[in-house]
Amino acid sequence: MPATSPLAPPLAPAGAGFEHVRCQVVARPSASPSVALTYGTFDLFHIGHLRLFERIKQRYDRLVVAVSTDEFNAKKGKKSVVPFGDRIAMVAACRWVDQVFAETDWGQKERDIITHGADAVVMGSDWEGRFDDLKALCEVVYLPRTEGVSSTELKAEVVAAVRSRA
Amino acid sequence: MPATSPLAPPLAPAGAGFEHVRCQVVARPSASPSVALTYGTFDLFHIGHLRLFERIKQRYDRLVVAVSTDEFNAKKGKKSVVPFGDRIAMVAACRWVDQVFAETDWGQKERDIITHGADAVVMGSDWEGRFDDLKALCEVVYLPRTEGVSSTELKAEVVAAVRSRA
Repeated sequence: MPATSPLAPPLAPAGAGFEHVRCQVVARPSASPSVALTYGTFDLFHIGHLRLFERIKQRYDRLVVAVSTDEFNAKKGKKSVVPFGDRIAMVAACRWVDQVFAETDWGQKERDIITHGADAVVMGSDWEGRFDDLKALCEVVYLPRTEGVSSTELKAEVVAAVRSRA
Repeated sequence: MPATSPLAPPLAPAGAGFEHVRCQVVARPSASPSVALTYGTFDLFHIGHLRLFERIKQRYDRLVVAVSTDEFNAKKGKKSVVPFGDRIAMVAACRWVDQVFAETDWGQKERDIITHGADAVVMGSDWEGRFDDLKALCEVVYLPRTEGVSSTELKAEVVAAVRSRA
């Protein structure tokens, strides 16, 4: 019953056809912007991260990014080269990103989806299937990764470049 | 003589005080935005690059960044880990950057200043004095670098981190 929605603009004047009223409601400016959430460490912020953010922003109005803290990474047995404060600043300065916050534990994703009103959690395809338990709350999308670019591969390239000059 | 400048708005009506006229001229909306140019390779785009861009944007309305091509770096005996296409894309995606273009030779800076209507060339203080010959054309500013962060230092940290896990 879109014409009686509290969000709809005032009804068309008496005599206006149904099509006219429906058209007004479909185009109402109060429709919420779509929100996507993504998660990661984003060590050595690189073109793969950037292309993922860019593709997400082509599909959703707002992109909110959770960046793993150093303490959370330590729990997972991971250690980034770049410390948390610098990693989150790099992500926040990307023009495709609307908001950033810290990822501090495994169990927060359900809360994050509700807090940020997320329509989707979007991850690179290297995470395929790993976020499927969130499908009860929102869409879960895995986008193809940029071939040949990851923080691990970039670190190997740095080591090779430094060695070739030694 | 600000009240007679061709850019000034029409003179205040007869009887208005001098203070009133001066106030109009200072606040004129037709003033051009200030433009800063900076140059670099921006290999492994990092927090030092970001903080430099941020500080430049605090001083100037527009920031235009020239990114060295791989061929130009080869002439200087330098080789970046990240190829030109990815480096310029990373810089262009930074929210403090308004425009990017390629730096392909030593002699282009004078042309760039004129083409982009630059008020200043702004570089990190590691370049202190090296751009002073441009002072005939525009302001030349050297801003303090972020301590302990450079592409070279970051590469050394990557090597140390990879070795510690080997």
